[in-house]
Amino acid sequence: MSLLVVGSIALDTVETPFGRHADILGGSATFFSVSASLFTKPRLVGVVGSDFPPEHIKALRKRKIDTAGIEYADGQTFRWNGRYTGDMNSAETLSVHLNVFGNFDPKVPDKFRDSSLVFLANGSTSIQMKVLSQVPKAKFIMVDTMNLWIETEREKLIELIKKANGLILNNHEAAMLTGKHNLIAAAKEILAYGLDVLVIKKGEHGAMLFDRKGNFFAIPAFPLDNVKDPTGAGDSFAGGFMGYLDKAGNTDFNTMKKALVYGTMTASFAVEDFSLNRLLKATTVQLKTRAEKFKKMFTL
Amino acid sequence: MSLLVVGSIALDTVETPFGRHADILGGSATFFSVSASLFTKPRLVGVVGSDFPPEHIKALRKRKIDTAGIEYADGQTFRWNGRYTGDMNSAETLSVHLNVFGNFDPKVPDKFRDSSLVFLANGSTSIQMKVLSQVPKAKFIMVDTMNLWIETEREKLIELIKKANGLILNNHEAAMLTGKHNLIAAAKEILAYGLDVLVIKKGEHGAMLFDRKGNFFAIPAFPLDNVKDPTGAGDSFAGGFMGYLDKAGNTDFNTMKKALVYGTMTASFAVEDFSLNRLLKATTVQLKTRAEKFKKMFTL
Repeated sequence: MSLLVVGSIALDTVETPFGRHADILGGSATFFSVSASLFTKPRLVGVVGSDFPPEHIKALRKRKIDTAGIEYADGQTFRWNGRYTGDMNSAETLSVHLNVFGNFDPKVPDKFRDSSLVFLANGSTSIQMKVLSQVPKAKFIMVDTMNLWIETEREKLIELIKKANGLILNNHEAAMLTGKHNLIAAAKEILAYGLDVLVIKKGEHGAMLFDRKGNFFAIPAFPLDNVKDPTGAGDSFAGGFMGYLDKAGNTDFNTMKKALVYGTMTASFAVEDFSLNRLLKATTVQLKTRAEKFKKMFTL
Repeated sequence: MSLLVVGSIALDTVETPFGRHADILGGSATFFSVSASLFTKPRLVGVVGSDFPPEHIKALRKRKIDTAGIEYADGQTFRWNGRYTGDMNSAETLSVHLNVFGNFDPKVPDKFRDSSLVFLANGSTSIQMKVLSQVPKAKFIMVDTMNLWIETEREKLIELIKKANGLILNNHEAAMLTGKHNLIAAAKEILAYGLDVLVIKKGEHGAMLFDRKGNFFAIPAFPLDNVKDPTGAGDSFAGGFMGYLDKAGNTDFNTMKKALVYGTMTASFAVEDFSLNRLLKATTVQLKTRAEKFKKMFTL
């Protein structure tokens, strides 16, 4: 199979109880592709400005990520400035400058058009929608989103969900999208839009997997007492999930269950340090070791 | 083994999005013992007033609960009036009248003094403390508590925890007790008080089990889209947990893992209807059927 991700590449300024770091590498497609690179050779489509440090591109290439889909536009790279306090379960956005991402018109390179697995990482629904016609061979398209697009592009988002196979969102977004507080009821409603698969991420509380046949699987999070920066946890989760599916070569429910475990693993690496610092150092041996340890934590 | 519970017996008035019911059977020891009765013959110590309907006692006896420790005092039974809205994750207390429970001086009947498993259900720490000297044969004492006692009797509570083997509380209480937002860090601090075992309940997000040797186990909640009344979920969880330990005849980590599954099961029955309506109808066949279904939901 072959895995394509389309999404943001950003320079973040992040403040947590563990420090403040300015202009560090971030972005939904970045976290996704580095996580997926532990399983496969992901293809990345995104846009950066003229200020984007070339060493970041090098770091991505070193992870066997195909960066042929990165467009270099005039202007500044997308910048996000956020702060986490307390339980660090949600970020307070201090500022957002879309910059070159604001005019992003995703162009899937010819050599990426045969991608069978496609991840539409967090970004405006309009941008996500533009990718659909450029991936004619896609067998499994998964969509991510966030509160902003649920609020501002709800109708378009539901239209996109209907065209996708899978949706991944967090528990707050599931409640917001459906108006239902009960997560199981919310999941049923979302699946009824016409999805094959739904993943609900719950941060420190783990993740749930639903399919349209009524299958259900849920696991806890990997226990960590050293969460330094939750930025990118969800994108990293998705990257591990889709990366594993690509490596496994199929998308049946049993494979998805294992993919949920690997998504949990890549997310757990992501939050152990700022930016992609920990993820970029993660090895497949570390991944397997942690996965074996993790599986025992919910095996009777 | 033999399982003793000491705690409250109440008449609750409960309002949820699914209705309002006045003066219905409630109380920590009540939910606990009915849940535990699916596994063993629990011994109950508590107090009721002269207004307590005799049919409730009959219902408890029908479940093979030994009610010899129920004291009949002059005055009114403990009354709690609460309301659940939104995600129903926490109750808003509208009024509390301790009544006869306010002067409760627990007396463990002679025939209960050989109890090997003891659950000090939610109630004031002072009341819980009074039980310790009356259970000389106890091998495993587990303590439950709530935000009120963490706020008002913190020092005494920690003193009690040090004398107990196990503590069961929810994620909010763990954060409140330690001042730590990260649940794993909070758990480590609580275990360091000198506990063998710690159970952290997370409502719809499942439960976690820690021991002082560093063992960790976590499972999701049973998925329900028909939660009608969460009252007593935690007590029912504890009842299933301790009831299973009593039936299994030991308290090693492997047995506790299974007990966590059964606690999840009894809690799932409890919340499907108001008061103990669903729990009192639950059969061991239903319990086993649901447990088998549940185990598959987190088995790879």
